[in-house]
Amino acid sequence: MNGISHRISGGIFEIVKGSSKYPARVGRVHTPHGSVETPVFMPVGTLGSVKGLGSEELEELGVSLVLCNAYHLYLRPGSPLIASAGGIHRFMGWNAPVLTDSGGYQVFSLASLRKITDEGVLFRSHIDGSEHFMTPEECIRIQRDIGADIIMAFDECPPYPCDYDSARGAVERTVKWAERCLEAWEASLEVANEGAEAAQGHAHRGVKAQDGAGGQALFGIIQGGTYESLRVECARAMTSMGFKGFAIGGLSVGEPKSEMYRMLDVTVPLIPEASPRYLMGVGSPDALVEGVMRGIDMFDCVIPTRLARHGTVLTASGPLTLRNRPYADDFGPIEPGCDCRVCRRYTRAYLRHLFKSNEILGLRLATYHNLHFTLRLMERLRRAIIEDSLEGLRDEVMAAYGNEGDSDQRDET
Amino acid sequence: MNGISHRISGGIFEIVKGSSKYPARVGRVHTPHGSVETPVFMPVGTLGSVKGLGSEELEELGVSLVLCNAYHLYLRPGSPLIASAGGIHRFMGWNAPVLTDSGGYQVFSLASLRKITDEGVLFRSHIDGSEHFMTPEECIRIQRDIGADIIMAFDECPPYPCDYDSARGAVERTVKWAERCLEAWEASLEVANEGAEAAQGHAHRGVKAQDGAGGQALFGIIQGGTYESLRVECARAMTSMGFKGFAIGGLSVGEPKSEMYRMLDVTVPLIPEASPRYLMGVGSPDALVEGVMRGIDMFDCVIPTRLARHGTVLTASGPLTLRNRPYADDFGPIEPGCDCRVCRRYTRAYLRHLFKSNEILGLRLATYHNLHFTLRLMERLRRAIIEDSLEGLRDEVMAAYGNEGDSDQRDET
Repeated sequence: MNGISHRISGGIFEIVKGSSKYPARVGRVHTPHGSVETPVFMPVGTLGSVKGLGSEELEELGVSLVLCNAYHLYLRPGSPLIASAGGIHRFMGWNAPVLTDSGGYQVFSLASLRKITDEGVLFRSHIDGSEHFMTPEECIRIQRDIGADIIMAFDECPPYPCDYDSARGAVERTVKWAERCLEAWEASLEVANEGAEAAQGHAHRGVKAQDGAGGQALFGIIQGGTYESLRVECARAMTSMGFKGFAIGGLSVGEPKSEMYRMLDVTVPLIPEASPRYLMGVGSPDALVEGVMRGIDMFDCVIPTRLARHGTVLTASGPLTLRNRPYADDFGPIEPGCDCRVCRRYTRAYLRHLFKSNEILGLRLATYHNLHFTLRLMERLRRAIIEDSLEGLRDEVMAAYGNEGDSDQRDET
Repeated sequence: MNGISHRISGGIFEIVKGSSKYPARVGRVHTPHGSVETPVFMPVGTLGSVKGLGSEELEELGVSLVLCNAYHLYLRPGSPLIASAGGIHRFMGWNAPVLTDSGGYQVFSLASLRKITDEGVLFRSHIDGSEHFMTPEECIRIQRDIGADIIMAFDECPPYPCDYDSARGAVERTVKWAERCLEAWEASLEVANEGAEAAQGHAHRGVKAQDGAGGQALFGIIQGGTYESLRVECARAMTSMGFKGFAIGGLSVGEPKSEMYRMLDVTVPLIPEASPRYLMGVGSPDALVEGVMRGIDMFDCVIPTRLARHGTVLTASGPLTLRNRPYADDFGPIEPGCDCRVCRRYTRAYLRHLFKSNEILGLRLATYHNLHFTLRLMERLRRAIIEDSLEGLRDEVMAAYGNEGDSDQRDET
């Protein structure tokens, strides 16, 4: 695998170079809106905006893939509206790749659940209490409307801790729903192709085409809680279906990080090497390093952006709580040596003042810096894989961030 | 005056061209951080940030002068901190002109007043209830610390409506305080000069120099409520002192606009032509036009930014309330033909979604557009003065904005 760039026929993933010592690899995910270098971190733009930042700033930061959330967008502004805008890219003024999470996690964590059956989930909106019935087919329809480059199957995401029987039930449902998602997705592709052909034949666009609807990829989600046997079972079932990539879900929901890493060690080897592997909800610097070293290609997490909104910034020497008194007259940049737009112009003292005064600009500037920090870490990880120097980078990151035992957080609301 | 560019010796203002029919004129205010073309609109950055926007965006917008507030900065983060940062410009990462309002308006409108005497005002902070005694001398000291290019005298700003005796009392106090402000300011300039000389002599900087402390200009504020005789009396007293420019204060505090215009008609002719004239708290499109036509050179107001935060955007055909239903699927820009960064990328539907979802980005984008709109209006006013075509522009703006009878709002908190 080392040094060989290959792309499996029909796949969307290409491995550029694998590590000689670890399952880590540098690769490219190909999407209708361009290629994404992996390992990649996706900022979370739940409702079609990464909180506080415009699409032009995401471009400036070098963001290559943004995560939006189908559950949230379905409730507000509604997926038909996004379809009528021409898809999520046009809606949010962002011409690069987008991934939508199916909303399984949100239905099970945010909404008031009314009834879960094999058919689907009856829930009440967390916004207005209105009742909705979500099925795998409906979830695919919504994500087709939204038109992201990569969409996720509808899964049952149990909380942590979760007893074995509940975790097993969630795996079984997730596998059945995955099959229905694939069927619905393939059927919708056929309709889209017929529509496109008809439109071509009639020299007009009979079907309003979403950007990226053509090459849209569907990923499956592997559940199983913290039970190795369930992870194995779910991974085997999911990888036997026709997904373009695989996510590891149901982690980063409150379990100790050691548990999460144990699940990765069991699950990742069962995912075909030629498929992109996506660890959902992870984004603290230490967990990004650990995930990459275990062969994860894609990550999303609210940590950099949520911490920023609360006044905590990420630096090479660890997180800083800007509200703290010592920064009141610290006229240095957030991170010495950082070349981001914020560090080039503003000081810790100014940011502290903005946070203490509840000025919106503070959270924006901190968000910008934290994303810059995280994207730069991913860049360094990609380089370290190519140069076979992962241990040095891991030691550096662990010295600054290795003491946090909590798992990362997933939802940006 | 027409066509002649002249600068009064010792003054900071230069008239480029006056209108042939109105007191309106195009000019330049010279400051230690560069020249400002007038008539100018100053965005309000009360606490050292124009809410939601970074200094780099103000540059991009072409903002030439920002207003900060001495009362607010005195309470938070404290003027000594700003002094130790090297002044407000360095503190907020903004290398262009800044004006600080003295805080007279804020002391009288925001704080809990404890006692007003000729000596000064005892008040409680609106933030933490702490007690402070503000005097003209203290107000100058604070503004010297902050180090803006233009600072304002400490005035008593009565509310509207205000009975004659109270308005008269406020004028008398404002005039006495203005004299003390001038004395304190001149004394502080001498100290600064001696410090600079000493520093030069010792080949080091004995006094930490604020950017702009050298050429800092002090403006007087003309009060008088809505009483013509008091406006005349105050204008005569203020213009007999050594101020570099004159503000008309105590307007835009709730009185009908017709009253405000009546006061301008009385007051502006009493201000020397060679001095910049600043109408405090005005910024609605119609009032900007009316003020410019009456000879006002400088304006500040929270209207464009505050409206934006509440989801109202300014366009050539009037204000739009983006939260309204008709914009849900309006995929056009905020303002057709607008070349601002927001209009080039985002739609009304997207902005409406952001506002309905309480996404911070919405208010940022709307703020950016509204400032762009207002700055472009000022640019058009300057051109109309030079081309003697003010009536056409006035008619256009009045058709879109002429129905609002309320006065503008002053404080951005």
